[in-house]
Amino acid sequence: MTRRNKNSAIILMHCPDAKGIVAQVTAFINDNNGNIITLDEHVDRLDKTFYMRIEWELDGFQIPKEKIADFFSTLIAARYNMSWKIYFSEPKPRMAIFVSKLSHCLYDILSRVHSGEWDVEIPLIIGNHRDLEPVAKQFGIPFHFFEINEQNKAEQEKKELELLKKNNVTFVVLARYMQIISENFINHYPNEIINIHHSFLPAFPGAKPYHSAYQRGVKIIGATSHYVTSELDAGPIIDQGIVRVSHRDSIDRLIMKGKDVEKLVLSGAILLHIHRRILVYNNRTVVFN
Amino acid sequence: MTRRNKNSAIILMHCPDAKGIVAQVTAFINDNNGNIITLDEHVDRLDKTFYMRIEWELDGFQIPKEKIADFFSTLIAARYNMSWKIYFSEPKPRMAIFVSKLSHCLYDILSRVHSGEWDVEIPLIIGNHRDLEPVAKQFGIPFHFFEINEQNKAEQEKKELELLKKNNVTFVVLARYMQIISENFINHYPNEIINIHHSFLPAFPGAKPYHSAYQRGVKIIGATSHYVTSELDAGPIIDQGIVRVSHRDSIDRLIMKGKDVEKLVLSGAILLHIHRRILVYNNRTVVFN
Amino acid sequence: MTRRNKNSAIILMHCPDAKGIVAQVTAFINDNNGNIITLDEHVDRLDKTFYMRIEWELDGFQIPKEKIADFFSTLIAARYNMSWKIYFSEPKPRMAIFVSKLSHCLYDILSRVHSGEWDVEIPLIIGNHRDLEPVAKQFGIPFHFFEINEQNKAEQEKKELELLKKNNVTFVVLARYMQIISENFINHYPNEIINIHHSFLPAFPGAKPYHSAYQRGVKIIGATSHYVTSELDAGPIIDQGIVRVSHRDSIDRLIMKGKDVEKLVLSGAILLHIHRRILVYNNRTVVFN
Amino acid sequence: MTRRNKNSAIILMHCPDAKGIVAQVTAFINDNNGNIITLDEHVDRLDKTFYMRIEWELDGFQIPKEKIADFFSTLIAARYNMSWKIYFSEPKPRMAIFVSKLSHCLYDILSRVHSGEWDVEIPLIIGNHRDLEPVAKQFGIPFHFFEINEQNKAEQEKKELELLKKNNVTFVVLARYMQIISENFINHYPNEIINIHHSFLPAFPGAKPYHSAYQRGVKIIGATSHYVTSELDAGPIIDQGIVRVSHRDSIDRLIMKGKDVEKLVLSGAILLHIHRRILVYNNRTVVFN
Repeated sequence: MTRRNKNSAIILMHCPDAKGIVAQVTAFINDNNGNIITLDEHVDRLDKTFYMRIEWELDGFQIPKEKIADFFSTLIAARYNMSWKIYFSEPKPRMAIFVSKLSHCLYDILSRVHSGEWDVEIPLIIGNHRDLEPVAKQFGIPFHFFEINEQNKAEQEKKELELLKKNNVTFVVLARYMQIISENFINHYPNEIINIHHSFLPAFPGAKPYHSAYQRGVKIIGATSHYVTSELDAGPIIDQGIVRVSHRDSIDRLIMKGKDVEKLVLSGAILLHIHRRILVYNNRTVVFN
Repeated sequence: MTRRNKNSAIILMHCPDAKGIVAQVTAFINDNNGNIITLDEHVDRLDKTFYMRIEWELDGFQIPKEKIADFFSTLIAARYNMSWKIYFSEPKPRMAIFVSKLSHCLYDILSRVHSGEWDVEIPLIIGNHRDLEPVAKQFGIPFHFFEINEQNKAEQEKKELELLKKNNVTFVVLARYMQIISENFINHYPNEIINIHHSFLPAFPGAKPYHSAYQRGVKIIGATSHYVTSELDAGPIIDQGIVRVSHRDSIDRLIMKGKDVEKLVLSGAILLHIHRRILVYNNRTVVFN
Repeated sequence: MTRRNKNSAIILMHCPDAKGIVAQVTAFINDNNGNIITLDEHVDRLDKTFYMRIEWELDGFQIPKEKIADFFSTLIAARYNMSWKIYFSEPKPRMAIFVSKLSHCLYDILSRVHSGEWDVEIPLIIGNHRDLEPVAKQFGIPFHFFEINEQNKAEQEKKELELLKKNNVTFVVLARYMQIISENFINHYPNEIINIHHSFLPAFPGAKPYHSAYQRGVKIIGATSHYVTSELDAGPIIDQGIVRVSHRDSIDRLIMKGKDVEKLVLSGAILLHIHRRILVYNNRTVVFN
Repeated sequence: MTRRNKNSAIILMHCPDAKGIVAQVTAFINDNNGNIITLDEHVDRLDKTFYMRIEWELDGFQIPKEKIADFFSTLIAARYNMSWKIYFSEPKPRMAIFVSKLSHCLYDILSRVHSGEWDVEIPLIIGNHRDLEPVAKQFGIPFHFFEINEQNKAEQEKKELELLKKNNVTFVVLARYMQIISENFINHYPNEIINIHHSFLPAFPGAKPYHSAYQRGVKIIGATSHYVTSELDAGPIIDQGIVRVSHRDSIDRLIMKGKDVEKLVLSGAILLHIHRRILVYNNRTVVFN
């Protein structure tokens, strides 16, 4: 799963379960001379819903790239009442990073991109504090400061959105961004805003989860990456990670141990998102990894 | 940590932190010709509390076994305002198991004891259903059926307590016992009743946690062993364990995966308890393992 | 993945990668009115090999059960030069368990089967020691004692094989069976004999791995379930598990901690095998879970 | 364990087990008005060896800092035939980092130090390739290039050692440094050179462990941090970490997953080393964490 494939198409779809879907979809690709690279499917027997991710090479595919959506819609999706979306491996996705004061997730992301680990562009970083501007500078990425308070929030978010559009941003990563995003903003990027929450959700939502974990005396702490929805810390979970703690760990030490989990769980979610391996349905995710 | 030591004494203590406690306690044992086997200490800098577990060999110890408590109390504990308790490795602790219908934890416990893995006696098993009577029979352990409903609860618990006393039961294990125990019962065995909750507390307390976990779409599920207090699922946590799950896991599969975690986390807690490695303070545990 | 499906067929296949395989196979099932329950495929880009597991409901399938193999072979497998095998969910698979002296894996398996967790029959248990005969008796399963030494090994294995055939045994589980099985025996059950090795292979093969782990001062120990091949401890790995250890763990404690991993890793492998989710190729496994 | 304590002393010691050691050592500190912050002890019953780490505050301690070693040696260590070493929390330890071409461990270390997570100085980075010079520059740390080949190795190492001495380097971290260090170099920093090996030692020592892991078809890969000794990849293990892999993971993907484990396991070892929580004996470590 490391490198994104060159010149491929990916369709993510879900629909009421029915006989013959896989056969029809694979025939559609195969008959038009497409080579399937991966196919993952899942049937939720409780919901009677069928989910699939299929990726194929576009070289030699008989339907022109710009017409695939139309043909697929007419010939396949309509028949099965599918919800679906098509993605192409090129051009590269473009990620905006939102930060506040903590640097560990930002460093982890930037060092991965800088060393070529991920196929993604980072046109800009947005901060509601200036603390991490030097980190952006270290990596030569434009940093934009947007101070946010109750009064200016709507206006500032509008400017942020304009900036994202201008930079053709595909998706947004909240790298320990400590500021609630409005529903209006979220609606511009549905299932395209990834957050890292510093607890093992649904345990300890909200602020200061490590303090709560310490008080409760838990023996494991965690972090949760999820898509942002209008309900705080309640969006579809992408991934979770944990680390063992003990009575020896002070709150400071919990926070420090937690940082390591946070950065790995967030970066893992970003990688899955870049590869378009995440399907959202009913506030849950199907992750084909 | 496998076998309990022969003829040893263990003191668990906590008190306001002060200079010289370790030196005084170790001198007390050393000067009386006791050989210290293990010493574990911990200082909570937030609470300014000192915790210690110390175990020493009684062979050759100059203070007779039955007078140690008195001497320690007068010479050491009083000076530092300690809360403390002494335990002896002999005789073996005696464990009562409470069960309902699910057998996985019971089998795990009985097979460990039967194969000599633990130094513990099981004089009896109590069930609020008859389902697991055959399992008790397989291992030759007396099974007592106590049907419990709202009307007879107080009376039945009284009989259970009499039975436990008669059998010199030291501590109680709730092996997926699906019945709330009254505060009165708990007060007879403070920090001596171990429960396994089938979720990663504080997430999903109460009944049907796997159904809730499925609905929330979590990527990790867990189990929590804790001492029972009068507040449901809120007692001091002894240990926690987790297992990864995915969209492919139905609720049935979550339950099945969860069982494996439950049995290991419960058995791990029992082992720690048998070795008297758990100190409870402020509704949290210090686990010296 | 909990329960095996009623009246279904499963095909495991691999072949040189080529365009159109998924489309052809799914059309074969779909056109004959079969409902696909799950489809998992994998392409090894290094080996250019295609792997697939497909399961479908037999109710209403137009090709009679006993003719499916012939039809599939002629219409599909021949075209792609497939190696493949078909399995039916009914009747239940029949498992023989081989044991020596340690009971933890045996208890774990028997308690799962006894409580209905797995869809499998256990017609018999074979021991090269008599130590676990009482455990077999506890669960009402016939126990056969075969003392094995260098002189009688070939002869005893011949008798064991006859016993397995007579009991229609589908596959064999070595539950900490401390006796090397001959190549001749293995050839009667290719990729149908599951072993648990008490280390994290390829570290510490052979006897006494926990002693070696202790000497080396490792911080994690593990267990490995694998299919038995003629080369000792070198067969295809099905699953592995680990547990953290520290300087505090004596060899006895390593062994005890290891037992918990061993029983879970072995039972996990058995479950995958019962569901026919394991494909072996080039001494490695593709596990569709 | 997060921050190192201000103005404290740490003694790491081991000796043949005997009665009264803890009492004597704690009395030595207590009687001289020192406040013990933490005390960890361990007895290896196989080797009959006693291990201890003790840390106390120097404020108000009656023995002057520069005389503590002499007093402890005469009054305590001599009596018990101890091997021991004293460390002071001030001044800060000074770490040299050796690198080759891969940046993930270096970024992880530098971002931690840069954000104030660790109490350590990094006076210089040494590379046997120039690839990571820009990373050093990003963080404003001097980078020294030492091309090494068979002919010049002894001479180059001599220059490196001079550079380390000149910079008062306390310990060395090999952050995926792909060059074997000579025994002579190692002898200048005994148990002060930390390496990260990209496999779960003792499995897959030497070069290309991920390729070997792929070939063997393992289901878990790992990384091992250890002190460097003259025998390659055989020094005392400090910590190990793992990550699950499957048939879906190509070698590229194994390498990428492995990087995440490597950086965490190396950084974890560095933190333990900075806090002087690691005691080496018989090529194994006692880690008080």
